[in-house]
Amino acid sequence: MSYDLIVLGGGPGGYLAAERAAQSGLKTVCIEARAFGGVCLNEGCIPSKTLLNSAKIYEYALNGAKYGVTTAGVTIDQKTVVERKNKVVTTLVSGVKSTLRTHKVKMVEGFCEIIGRDKDGFTVSVAGEMFKSTNLIIATGSSPAIPPIPGVKEGIASGFVLTNREILDLETIPQSLVVIGGGVIGLEMAAYYNSVGSKVTVIEMLDHIAGPTDREVSTMLQKVYEKKGVTFKLNSKVTAIGTSSVSYEENGKTETVQADKVLLSIGRRPVISGFGLERLGVLTEKGAIKTDRTCLTSIPNVYAVGDVNGVSMLAHTAYREAEVAVNSIIGKRDIMRYNAIPSVIYTNPEMAGVGETEESAKAKGISYVVGKVSMLYSGRFLAENEGGNGICKILAEKDSGRIIGAHMLGAYVSEFIIAAGMMVETEMTLSDAKEIVFPHPTVSEILREAIFAI
Amino acid sequence: MSYDLIVLGGGPGGYLAAERAAQSGLKTVCIEARAFGGVCLNEGCIPSKTLLNSAKIYEYALNGAKYGVTTAGVTIDQKTVVERKNKVVTTLVSGVKSTLRTHKVKMVEGFCEIIGRDKDGFTVSVAGEMFKSTNLIIATGSSPAIPPIPGVKEGIASGFVLTNREILDLETIPQSLVVIGGGVIGLEMAAYYNSVGSKVTVIEMLDHIAGPTDREVSTMLQKVYEKKGVTFKLNSKVTAIGTSSVSYEENGKTETVQADKVLLSIGRRPVISGFGLERLGVLTEKGAIKTDRTCLTSIPNVYAVGDVNGVSMLAHTAYREAEVAVNSIIGKRDIMRYNAIPSVIYTNPEMAGVGETEESAKAKGISYVVGKVSMLYSGRFLAENEGGNGICKILAEKDSGRIIGAHMLGAYVSEFIIAAGMMVETEMTLSDAKEIVFPHPTVSEILREAIFAI
Repeated sequence: MSYDLIVLGGGPGGYLAAERAAQSGLKTVCIEARAFGGVCLNEGCIPSKTLLNSAKIYEYALNGAKYGVTTAGVTIDQKTVVERKNKVVTTLVSGVKSTLRTHKVKMVEGFCEIIGRDKDGFTVSVAGEMFKSTNLIIATGSSPAIPPIPGVKEGIASGFVLTNREILDLETIPQSLVVIGGGVIGLEMAAYYNSVGSKVTVIEMLDHIAGPTDREVSTMLQKVYEKKGVTFKLNSKVTAIGTSSVSYEENGKTETVQADKVLLSIGRRPVISGFGLERLGVLTEKGAIKTDRTCLTSIPNVYAVGDVNGVSMLAHTAYREAEVAVNSIIGKRDIMRYNAIPSVIYTNPEMAGVGETEESAKAKGISYVVGKVSMLYSGRFLAENEGGNGICKILAEKDSGRIIGAHMLGAYVSEFIIAAGMMVETEMTLSDAKEIVFPHPTVSEILREAIFAI
Repeated sequence: MSYDLIVLGGGPGGYLAAERAAQSGLKTVCIEARAFGGVCLNEGCIPSKTLLNSAKIYEYALNGAKYGVTTAGVTIDQKTVVERKNKVVTTLVSGVKSTLRTHKVKMVEGFCEIIGRDKDGFTVSVAGEMFKSTNLIIATGSSPAIPPIPGVKEGIASGFVLTNREILDLETIPQSLVVIGGGVIGLEMAAYYNSVGSKVTVIEMLDHIAGPTDREVSTMLQKVYEKKGVTFKLNSKVTAIGTSSVSYEENGKTETVQADKVLLSIGRRPVISGFGLERLGVLTEKGAIKTDRTCLTSIPNVYAVGDVNGVSMLAHTAYREAEVAVNSIIGKRDIMRYNAIPSVIYTNPEMAGVGETEESAKAKGISYVVGKVSMLYSGRFLAENEGGNGICKILAEKDSGRIIGAHMLGAYVSEFIIAAGMMVETEMTLSDAKEIVFPHPTVSEILREAIFAI
């Protein structure tokens, strides 16, 4: 069958590209090898948020007394949590499929193989069936990085070592969990299993957790979780995985920590092989498909969106890239801007950021000013978080006063970081931002406080 | 003593005006009759949010089973809730005072009396002490409207009828509560006492609750609370208050409902008398001080900010008005815009809105388009709200595509309505808004969904 567009992958980038393309009148097929919705929906963002929501409710019940709510015999049933997670995922996956159906996107489940390109376009095969199209969007996503550490393969085979996929399906709470890699996935799962009673150790190679986020904020998050009982081993490199332990090197010394389960979360790698990509001669760089700001690859009519291009491996980046790619295909001028993409870690408290950090601004030689306030400046935060703590930082260019970044730890920051994102996106100046009326009493007002603190 | 500025009132409008004025180098005195922080901090926004937070935790504990969290017994202790509320208020009030102290604002506690005006400025007396200044900011706030209904005065005297002030201090939960007036305060207290077990009846004169908010959204909120057990009597006028009952007229028939307590929340009236305002000849209109867009009254050098000018009786409006008034005094051009001020009702789910509603747009003859989606389009909402419901509506001018309003019912809407507020404030078009990257998975993404639904 002949199409205007073949989309390889049915995750956030793929399914949204297919939806938008079909809405624009393109005859579109979307091919997914595992499950529509992709990693985000099936084994990432959504399932983890379902678990973390149960953990939040559990923590509220355990700690309600200070708010006047006393409970007896609080328990969390991991099996129910996982069952509910599966129900939520099923609902959302059928939502995605139903949307694609409504827009008359042809959905194909199976492994795809790019056969090649000729003057009429591209040919892709799925289980022997041939699909042809004039345009191609590659949205094959990413998979967990598996390091060449002795014992890793055996650990995965035995179920001792888990990735983001398996840890979301654990039906019993491990007594102890070692998390290898203190990035977003590692921290969210450390937070969940800490809340529900596991003894959690996070082993991180770098001297800080939470990747390229603001250092002051991530250090505060680490302290909060140390207080909650999580052990962090920074500057530590895992050297071997045993049958019930993990060995790592710290300051030149080898240490060993016992574990019931191990989560491997050292990062994700774009999926660029195994589906005939090489037949197109698409340029890759550092294991990712190289794209320009319209998400076009080195080959005309071939676009790459989402994790596979390695630029910003976040579901919401993939959404926007999908739109940019489809707009480019239909001849509507649109380009990606990556400077105002928020990122969130759904720990409790949550961490969120957008734009430049102090570290990135310094590295780029940007002269900046910073406004910094404690979350305790927010009346609502104080009203709702007995003994809680947090921070809000705003960065602005020194000369222009334009807001270039915001970084926060606290309640609800996931939900209002978008306001800071809009400030960065619209290149708003501090003086314009001062005229915005924030609703009172909200935690979002902390942005206003930080702006006035500059 | 002689000052550059006398601020009458230490609520949100007054204390922020004093703070900003002092920061700008004005020698400032702030006079407060009751308690610094005003109604908002002492008997309004903050105390109610503290109570509602306890109610949320209580509801989570009661309904945790569907999220895998079970408890053997849950109780809420109203005395502890009120004690914690008082602690939060004390902390925040000392914060306000400490900020004013830091900025060297002279704080005076006592009833003020405007003595008059001469060529040197204004004279205000507090318990015999005289204060003189060249500028005056009136921020005397508002007080609960007390309707001339038979039995009201006796009810208030006996403690049967409460206002926003007393209901926040109830140390036992009434078995039944009648709420007269289904506006913000009425609904929030109805929500709280419904959550903690009171049988609640809301009596409202209009044919809808929640005042001038979007009708479709407020109707949905009403349905949610009907399901939770609240009775709403619309188009109903209270005719008499007995010693343990309230009588009202509905469809020409008089009905009576029994009550342990009654909350009177039919609105608030600007405080424009009792402090010598008449000596200045300041123009008032419909019981409020008339101001222009710089918050200047009819008399030079006299400004009125906050509830007392009756424009938008919200703490965050008062904040911004305070800044505008101070900027005007120090000669910095600044004006109020009232079109992008968010409003929130902290029920569970929360309701929030900004800008034009369908009703107000129609009344003004604005030709608009509307995007409307269910909250179930948000993956995070679905993950966190089993059986929950909600809505998000975006309004845009038909020709220009400029976003002019947003109205929502759902989780966290209080915290991300600011994003919609910024769209309205910056006159953002739908096509620009489509390029904003919202973090996934958040409930805030629902704004994006509504925008794309247009």
